[in-house]
Amino acid sequence: MKISLAQFGLGPIGLETLRLAAAKPWARIVGAIDIDPAKIGRDLGDLTQVPDLKGRKVYGSLRELLAHAKPDLVFHTAVSRLNDACAQIEPLARQGISVVSSCEELLFPKLREPRLAARLDAVCRRNQARVVATGVNPGFVMDLLPVCLTGVCREVRAIHVQRVVNASTRRGPLQRKIGSGLPPREFRRLFRAGKAGHAGLKESAALLAHCLGWKPETITETGDAVIADHDIQTQHVTVRKGQTCGLHQHAKVKVNGKVRLTLDLRMYLDAPDPHDAVQIEGDPALDLVLAGGVAGDQATVAALVNTAPRLLRANPGLLLVTDLPVPSMT
Amino acid sequence: MKISLAQFGLGPIGLETLRLAAAKPWARIVGAIDIDPAKIGRDLGDLTQVPDLKGRKVYGSLRELLAHAKPDLVFHTAVSRLNDACAQIEPLARQGISVVSSCEELLFPKLREPRLAARLDAVCRRNQARVVATGVNPGFVMDLLPVCLTGVCREVRAIHVQRVVNASTRRGPLQRKIGSGLPPREFRRLFRAGKAGHAGLKESAALLAHCLGWKPETITETGDAVIADHDIQTQHVTVRKGQTCGLHQHAKVKVNGKVRLTLDLRMYLDAPDPHDAVQIEGDPALDLVLAGGVAGDQATVAALVNTAPRLLRANPGLLLVTDLPVPSMT
Repeated sequence: MKISLAQFGLGPIGLETLRLAAAKPWARIVGAIDIDPAKIGRDLGDLTQVPDLKGRKVYGSLRELLAHAKPDLVFHTAVSRLNDACAQIEPLARQGISVVSSCEELLFPKLREPRLAARLDAVCRRNQARVVATGVNPGFVMDLLPVCLTGVCREVRAIHVQRVVNASTRRGPLQRKIGSGLPPREFRRLFRAGKAGHAGLKESAALLAHCLGWKPETITETGDAVIADHDIQTQHVTVRKGQTCGLHQHAKVKVNGKVRLTLDLRMYLDAPDPHDAVQIEGDPALDLVLAGGVAGDQATVAALVNTAPRLLRANPGLLLVTDLPVPSMT
Repeated sequence: MKISLAQFGLGPIGLETLRLAAAKPWARIVGAIDIDPAKIGRDLGDLTQVPDLKGRKVYGSLRELLAHAKPDLVFHTAVSRLNDACAQIEPLARQGISVVSSCEELLFPKLREPRLAARLDAVCRRNQARVVATGVNPGFVMDLLPVCLTGVCREVRAIHVQRVVNASTRRGPLQRKIGSGLPPREFRRLFRAGKAGHAGLKESAALLAHCLGWKPETITETGDAVIADHDIQTQHVTVRKGQTCGLHQHAKVKVNGKVRLTLDLRMYLDAPDPHDAVQIEGDPALDLVLAGGVAGDQATVAALVNTAPRLLRANPGLLLVTDLPVPSMT
């Protein structure tokens, strides 16, 4: 039996998720939902350039999609904020439709909105739906991968994760989200207002602490602009020397008065030596490096699609990606 | 509710498993089983030097253990061969007792003994028992970790894993198992007879292929002695220049005429630059290095103990370690 799928949100990640899912022998795409009037009614074959998707449509609402077909599972790649995501996901869960979401704050929903999380969890259980958020970051490099490594540790005293991303190789929306081209002062203002920066760093930290059974005393996050030391021109943005060309974000978790988790993220245009690194202070100590890092966009799309079959075999509820079996390409 | 545990096999790994389990707040140790007459009847407090284990005994059989207490789960660290393991584990499963085993061939039991595996699986399901094998290798470095990485891949064309272990830092039984001190010709004879070498390399390869949905055409394994280029003295063995000081084992998996998996293992005394490495040819490509490698004995013991709570939450059956949720220190 194939898994019947729909896509919610047709930005670059959503379209690429559809393309990858369409190539899977276990998947059947039934349609998509987007609120953009320019996309509603269009043919997914045209939008994605995947001939197999010809005849599948973009609908303006869940109600309209359901009038045509009911998916088993929806890929949700529309928003970063938890409130927005819950408003979009709860109606799906009420229909018994499971959801794999890229919403960063949904990775560990109890952190910001314990009541909203409990409510969505109850809706899922009542209607036999499963909801989980994943991606490459949050969802893998700075949380699931370090958690997985601790599986061979007798003791863990502290975990330090660094991720350096060369944003010049990433999609346009991401190049803008990291503040490219802004005066540094403006980036800082937007970051403080929660309107610029990488979403989900605190969630990664909270998920790590949760999996290790640690009760965080504080989870603090700082963010600053990285300032261009030369003019930079990408496919999507132009940045002059002295303007913001990306961000440096840092989260730390204190447990019993000690800093036991640090997550350090640098995403900026032309960043040299991109890589992901995890150091575990423990027994045994572990020192992992992914040279070149994990390519963000391709990996996020893969994480979303690969999660679908695993999610449908799990118990109903609002789940954490670490509740599911070991990830694999499927 | 604490998990009630017993230990089957009191070699170095078994004793260390008991010591680690005894320190877990979720665990209660009820006893141990060993066939060694010198150990039967002894007090686990004395054997392990863990005061909390005073009063817990070593029994010569399951029947004698059950006369005193029935564990929820048994750590089985007694044998490498699947036939021997099944003979010891099936009676446990018949009692509804779950088992986390270090038996290398049990990692992917269908490879060598599909009928025996199906039978043990049926016994488990009938009696609500869960059985799984794990460890650091097999069980993590050359199988679970690469599988986990593919979770962020759209496509995987090939996977190459290398592990270099400095056996001088390992336990005595392992230093002997890799052939230390043997004439190279004698090592080769024993390897061909299945009496020397690392067990479980083919199982790691088969588990990887299984998780990726690949049907192996062939899984081939070669092994050779590494020859000492200087005299070596460890705490456990003495090796003269020209004698065997360890092994080099290699497994490869062909799928549709192409080599798609290679596992390369070097374990020898005084090996320089010990490390674990995984290269994934795919989209995205991934290039992971664990500098220094994952310390074998500590990590195996940790993997066994950390698996127990996860296993008891899984569905009954003879399971693969990749069927369980993402590992973590517990």
